[in-house]
Amino acid sequence: MLRLPRLVRSRGLRYSSSIPRFPCVEAHATRESRLTSLASDSIPGPSSGPEPPYARPNPASYTIFHSPNPLPLTYHLSPLPSFDIAYETWGTLSPSKDNVILLHTGLSASSHAASTAANPADGWWEKFIGPGKPLDTNNFFVICTNVLGGCYGSTGPSSTDPSTGSHYATRFPILSIFDMVRAQFRLLDHLGVQKLYASVGSSMGAMQSLAAAWLHPERVGKVVSISGTARSSPSSVAMRFAQRSVLMADPNWNNGFYYDGVPPHTGMKLARQIATITYRSGPEWDARFGRQMRPLPADADPNGPRVPALCPDFLIETYLDHQGEQFCLKYDANSLIYISKAMDLFDMTLPSLQALGLPEAQFDAVDADGRARPHSTSHSKSHPPPTNPPAHLPALAQGLAPLAQTPTLVLGVQSDILFTVEQQREVVNALHMAGNDRVVYYELGGVWGHDTFLLDVMNVGGAIRGFLS
Amino acid sequence: MLRLPRLVRSRGLRYSSSIPRFPCVEAHATRESRLTSLASDSIPGPSSGPEPPYARPNPASYTIFHSPNPLPLTYHLSPLPSFDIAYETWGTLSPSKDNVILLHTGLSASSHAASTAANPADGWWEKFIGPGKPLDTNNFFVICTNVLGGCYGSTGPSSTDPSTGSHYATRFPILSIFDMVRAQFRLLDHLGVQKLYASVGSSMGAMQSLAAAWLHPERVGKVVSISGTARSSPSSVAMRFAQRSVLMADPNWNNGFYYDGVPPHTGMKLARQIATITYRSGPEWDARFGRQMRPLPADADPNGPRVPALCPDFLIETYLDHQGEQFCLKYDANSLIYISKAMDLFDMTLPSLQALGLPEAQFDAVDADGRARPHSTSHSKSHPPPTNPPAHLPALAQGLAPLAQTPTLVLGVQSDILFTVEQQREVVNALHMAGNDRVVYYELGGVWGHDTFLLDVMNVGGAIRGFLS
Repeated sequence: MLRLPRLVRSRGLRYSSSIPRFPCVEAHATRESRLTSLASDSIPGPSSGPEPPYARPNPASYTIFHSPNPLPLTYHLSPLPSFDIAYETWGTLSPSKDNVILLHTGLSASSHAASTAANPADGWWEKFIGPGKPLDTNNFFVICTNVLGGCYGSTGPSSTDPSTGSHYATRFPILSIFDMVRAQFRLLDHLGVQKLYASVGSSMGAMQSLAAAWLHPERVGKVVSISGTARSSPSSVAMRFAQRSVLMADPNWNNGFYYDGVPPHTGMKLARQIATITYRSGPEWDARFGRQMRPLPADADPNGPRVPALCPDFLIETYLDHQGEQFCLKYDANSLIYISKAMDLFDMTLPSLQALGLPEAQFDAVDADGRARPHSTSHSKSHPPPTNPPAHLPALAQGLAPLAQTPTLVLGVQSDILFTVEQQREVVNALHMAGNDRVVYYELGGVWGHDTFLLDVMNVGGAIRGFLS
Repeated sequence: MLRLPRLVRSRGLRYSSSIPRFPCVEAHATRESRLTSLASDSIPGPSSGPEPPYARPNPASYTIFHSPNPLPLTYHLSPLPSFDIAYETWGTLSPSKDNVILLHTGLSASSHAASTAANPADGWWEKFIGPGKPLDTNNFFVICTNVLGGCYGSTGPSSTDPSTGSHYATRFPILSIFDMVRAQFRLLDHLGVQKLYASVGSSMGAMQSLAAAWLHPERVGKVVSISGTARSSPSSVAMRFAQRSVLMADPNWNNGFYYDGVPPHTGMKLARQIATITYRSGPEWDARFGRQMRPLPADADPNGPRVPALCPDFLIETYLDHQGEQFCLKYDANSLIYISKAMDLFDMTLPSLQALGLPEAQFDAVDADGRARPHSTSHSKSHPPPTNPPAHLPALAQGLAPLAQTPTLVLGVQSDILFTVEQQREVVNALHMAGNDRVVYYELGGVWGHDTFLLDVMNVGGAIRGFLS
């Protein structure tokens, strides 16, 4: 039932000539005071910041793979001199090490995809991983890593630069999705895993899943790409740009050098509010919140007038406010900036891939002029090119040519406004044009938008289970 | 042709151990310095702020209607004691004053819809107003006002409160769309216009256009509602909430009391960036910008490496940055907050309208229990209720019952993500269910999204011309 604004005209507040108060704005100052107080209580030194929760991960709950060897980087001549990758596993590695599923995360997730003995808290894909679940640990050995650039145990901007002894901050190099995947394959090398049974990911994880098969077609048995893309669209860049902009405008961001002080908690809250808008859908909010307003404060007269507030008043507003508040100290601001930028830069069209100069470059499928070789990109009779394709589709098909033989599951959601269903069809069409006859495609309805991959165990889980078996 | 990131691996920059610079962040500080300097140069006093451009409108270019009589307000018992409405006109008022078109604006537009002798600059609907144009001044007398709450000559938060001699700031009362329209009808009374030939508006102006016919069905001959809604959706509330949040978090906002200092220019820029995302569409950006990047600086080596930047790098980013920069001193931050809130509050479902206690209350069409009277809401055979309607559709039909006899043009755009095409159909279906047999509905394709009403003279203009003739 709708809760409506009420105004009883025979009673109520006159608008006041005193200075109005805005609790939602005061909340930023209150948080600032609390964090400043924490900072001043800590021991002075180069890393004496207030240590928000993200800076206190639980190292006992994951394993660290430390690579003392440098990692080449896509956008920099200097490699990352050494790096850590935090990871967790579920299930049992088979003696021949042929049952490995590498699970890639979305932007801000940790390696804790599901509960473990070391960390019994629910993971972000709790219902998808376990005995008899879609990623069935009776059969598979599942590995999930914190992504390179993240802040949950893997090397990122908040890590100490061994050459200076200080946090990298924004001296950290710009990363690509390929860099992240390359670091994961170092971990696989370390574990002696030569070939993955499958590379599985949603959202940014779907980009990594495709990138893994592109970098190492011979090492990836199957690919699962859920609500992802092979070429970030300008509208998704726009949404992430808006988030980075509000974050970088927070004075506490301080050009990225906030680790010894108070982090940009207000910018993070505002950025998360924007992000949250892109994760669900209008139809979901209409069904879930409609135009309902927040309950009146306990001391309010329930029969009194209700004057609308400029601070959150509708439930959709309090929801966004709450999501921002919950997140703003849980994740490192620079990690958000770097990883969202890596997503923006992801583009598997052939000219873009060629410009990256990747050492593993998989251009065997194209000839010297960048034209697709006939065997891998000829259109099979069963896969004619789509009608009215986007202009970049042929270039994307050329770029995806190394995946021509890889069984691939693509799953998209019609209510997703961040990774639209058009982008899902684009991946499918490009793979078809590249000659891949083993593409499975599901398009889901429902109102959960981009977050469907976290919520819809029956449909998303079912598709994965069927494809992997 | 795509401009691609380039990296020549044999040359290029090592990532530096020096502190990185972020020109996009420095731009905020530079603007701040400039505005602070302007503020200190001005004569001290209660209104000695730096006077951004919006504070220097050209009073010679519009007419001010001053009402010394109080205006009742929807959400406050105290009326606005007096108020000004700035307006401009085009064409000639007929002797019987029966050829008037009242044109309502979107959120941030002024009364300058088209060039005039007093102000020859192009207006925001220049191609739509004039002799032989869709709003044909050979036939019609067009009136456009700056909205109540605005900052281009009409009374708003930046105006002086006569009771204190200071700016209202956030002591200004929360407004409703109905308040804005009521102020416009005071102007019509002043001009001796008893009945409008038509009420025309796009975006927020479409809300006003519908509200005018609801408040005064007998005074509105025809209604044009372009890319509007009769019930703000939670997703549009979410987008406007995100804008208000970044604006109110700017320390310069100062709870709305910035008129004697530096305005929240950074918050305004960030808010406008978010708004701009909602005004166009992903397909337009893909066609217009694709994944092109900004040109390299003039002093850059064109053959050198291109390391991606965290500041705007893709053209879509520089576009949003530019739109924000252009807007941030052109409009009053408090006007943006108040008017966007009025849009959020707009809801013509019957229970919501009843809760407002409007003095003009048009509930004749419903009986004492709030049920629609048969004559106005019975479904004619030609208008069966739609399949799978939103739950609030019957309540919206009841609310719109006063428009049952008003010829209404509804026009929507399929690529509009702010006022979705589903909302356009909702208005049409509600009017049909209310018994209105004179609804004309056009649904446009194209990639221009919400901004189509500003751009598509042929299709939008043609629909208006046909409907008004």
